[in-house]
Amino acid sequence: MKHLVIIGGGFAGLWATRALAGEALRITLIDRHNHHLFQPLLYQVATAGLSAPDIAAPLRHILRRQENVEVRLGEVRDIAPDAKTVTLDDGDVLRFDWLLLAAGATHAYFGHDDWAPHAPGLKTLDDALDLRRKLLLAFERAEAETDPAARAAWLNFAIVGGGPTGVELAGTLAEIARHTLKNEFRHIDPSEARVRLIEAGPRVLSSFPEDLSEKARRQLRKLGVEVVTGTPVGEINAAGYRLGDEFVAARTVVWAAGVAASPLARSLGVPLDRAGRVLVQPDLSVPGHPDIFVGGDLALVQSDGKPVPGVAPAAKQMGRYVAQAIRTRLAKTDPPSAFRYRDFGNLATIGRMAAIVHLGKLKLSGVLAWWFWLAAHVFFLIGFRNRLVVLLNWAWAYWSYQRGARIILGDSDDGQARSTRQA
Amino acid sequence: MKHLVIIGGGFAGLWATRALAGEALRITLIDRHNHHLFQPLLYQVATAGLSAPDIAAPLRHILRRQENVEVRLGEVRDIAPDAKTVTLDDGDVLRFDWLLLAAGATHAYFGHDDWAPHAPGLKTLDDALDLRRKLLLAFERAEAETDPAARAAWLNFAIVGGGPTGVELAGTLAEIARHTLKNEFRHIDPSEARVRLIEAGPRVLSSFPEDLSEKARRQLRKLGVEVVTGTPVGEINAAGYRLGDEFVAARTVVWAAGVAASPLARSLGVPLDRAGRVLVQPDLSVPGHPDIFVGGDLALVQSDGKPVPGVAPAAKQMGRYVAQAIRTRLAKTDPPSAFRYRDFGNLATIGRMAAIVHLGKLKLSGVLAWWFWLAAHVFFLIGFRNRLVVLLNWAWAYWSYQRGARIILGDSDDGQARSTRQA
Repeated sequence: MKHLVIIGGGFAGLWATRALAGEALRITLIDRHNHHLFQPLLYQVATAGLSAPDIAAPLRHILRRQENVEVRLGEVRDIAPDAKTVTLDDGDVLRFDWLLLAAGATHAYFGHDDWAPHAPGLKTLDDALDLRRKLLLAFERAEAETDPAARAAWLNFAIVGGGPTGVELAGTLAEIARHTLKNEFRHIDPSEARVRLIEAGPRVLSSFPEDLSEKARRQLRKLGVEVVTGTPVGEINAAGYRLGDEFVAARTVVWAAGVAASPLARSLGVPLDRAGRVLVQPDLSVPGHPDIFVGGDLALVQSDGKPVPGVAPAAKQMGRYVAQAIRTRLAKTDPPSAFRYRDFGNLATIGRMAAIVHLGKLKLSGVLAWWFWLAAHVFFLIGFRNRLVVLLNWAWAYWSYQRGARIILGDSDDGQARSTRQA
Repeated sequence: MKHLVIIGGGFAGLWATRALAGEALRITLIDRHNHHLFQPLLYQVATAGLSAPDIAAPLRHILRRQENVEVRLGEVRDIAPDAKTVTLDDGDVLRFDWLLLAAGATHAYFGHDDWAPHAPGLKTLDDALDLRRKLLLAFERAEAETDPAARAAWLNFAIVGGGPTGVELAGTLAEIARHTLKNEFRHIDPSEARVRLIEAGPRVLSSFPEDLSEKARRQLRKLGVEVVTGTPVGEINAAGYRLGDEFVAARTVVWAAGVAASPLARSLGVPLDRAGRVLVQPDLSVPGHPDIFVGGDLALVQSDGKPVPGVAPAAKQMGRYVAQAIRTRLAKTDPPSAFRYRDFGNLATIGRMAAIVHLGKLKLSGVLAWWFWLAAHVFFLIGFRNRLVVLLNWAWAYWSYQRGARIILGDSDDGQARSTRQA
């Protein structure tokens, strides 16, 4: 029986797997985490609105009834495209007939990797929990700080990158400062926190039409976010960041400005773009290796003359497409025509009760857009339980401005990664 | 204005704080975590039934409306009883008129601290998340293991200590192996996992009457737990544990056998018992220091000729008692009479739909006891939101046998504490 190995249980890998249910082949789905993560809501975990398990579901559980698939928790060390093998970090070697590499993206710092420790990004649940810690601790440190300049630095937040993630983080952080934490401190007024969103390009949410972009900017300002566009960040260190000529003392800088493809792509030995993505054929296969496919954020493919964006719906469609291609090979029928991305539109939330939605000719903003955004995100979550939990959490947050997951885990010391605790 | 410093935001410290609302004094509540933790349900987080924020609430949020209290996130380095100062780890020194030391307990290994890395305990949210990781990873490792002996070792679980925590963990783990994970693995049958509960004394749940103890033991056996009594564990290392003459290969050993008082008690310079608890006066004050009180698990006090147990209701009562004592001092009226513990009974759950309850003359077991236990635990949670969330989680688990928080965080490598991740 033919063996398909899928690396990555994200949107592309998981959708490919499920689309092959009942087919006569053996599938091994490898992921270094045990769960599928609904990344669009990561910022909610990072801002203590949802807890980690609310937006993730164990892969084994999702796929328990699909008999042709086996889930393997592990990290891939190497791929040998000619030998058609995948080597895991525990030494196991898997032979494949077909491979789908869907390992996703990680953070990219445009050649400034030294900024990474001072400006964490948001791609995994661990990122989100670390960020949550950092955000909550900043207010705690400010409360205990007697020196006014040091206190101001703790209350200075900067988010680098004006795409949906950055906008969502900025808006939510401003809400936390102005509403959620009101009255909870004795030495600081949390609403004095300064939240700044920095975008190197001319406008935030540049993947949206200009008028929606502008509406978002106004909404952010209403929430109390300072939006700075047209200026890239020059330097980031433990004390703050440089913007143009000015160095700003800010203890909390968040990176939402760039992603790079998983380093696994390099083991394929084929041309990559500057972000490390694999330039795939129109059928999503790797040049010279028709049995190896790449899907999701890792793939760079053109559709209707434009590059397919690294968003969840695109990854799902690529996953389903690869499944279709494999089905035709099993059945020895004609392969599908070139991959075409069907753009179902773009959504971004700005804060409580405000979002922007772009669907073809339809443009929405404000409260109506927000209800649309909420419905879409809940609908696309996996699992009835998670949908229910997230809905309830949001109903709660809507009524009370409270956030349900404001827990700092790990030692509450400055800037340390979660410690290795002694007994 | 008089200054009361309270160290520890657990049951004793928090109840003392709240009982002094509106009084004319200044209170500083110090805790090294930002949240109050409902410890009785920690085992639920450890077994992936609830997520961490479900059973914890931020102290700042709980106390936001109480104007005479200030919450301070920090760790106490030292207490100087004669100078009446408390020094925090960031160097700050707080002067107090009254002090309530309520820092609680941590794990104790009866002189075998070298067992600690191999047999983690369960006292904080971090403990619970680490344990959850360990439990879930054990099944993952077994799935990937080809050597039968090594696989069996991964499917061998031991819980040391037959008190309520150990019993709850053992029962829940057996349920997970037999029901929750059914059909999710391809190379192992999770129900082949062996769950052993080891108690050095003659029976489990020795704080309950013998007949309820026996009912619990039978219920555990029905769930698939091997109960071993009358034998202490002789050694624990990375490969397993020794019981009598036999060394058992078991990769997952959990410590639920002993607690010791927080080391802070030593800075008081007064007599401590073998577990490090402070022998307090009948009014809960420290001998020779009438302005320093100790409450909760840290205090050893007699009531009706018996030592007061280290349980949540006792801690709450002690907290309220200290608040009362301080109120009389503020008002310059007679102090309250000696502390009396009102035993509202004992509850322990064994698994789905089974518990034992002992309330004075009332003894319940089985399903009825379980409903009682559920109602009591939900009722005593802090916060409407947490009550609702926990109720819903349990309703879900009851119907589906599923557990809502089966997420492994951190790098999925063997036995490492959560790694310091690089960018």
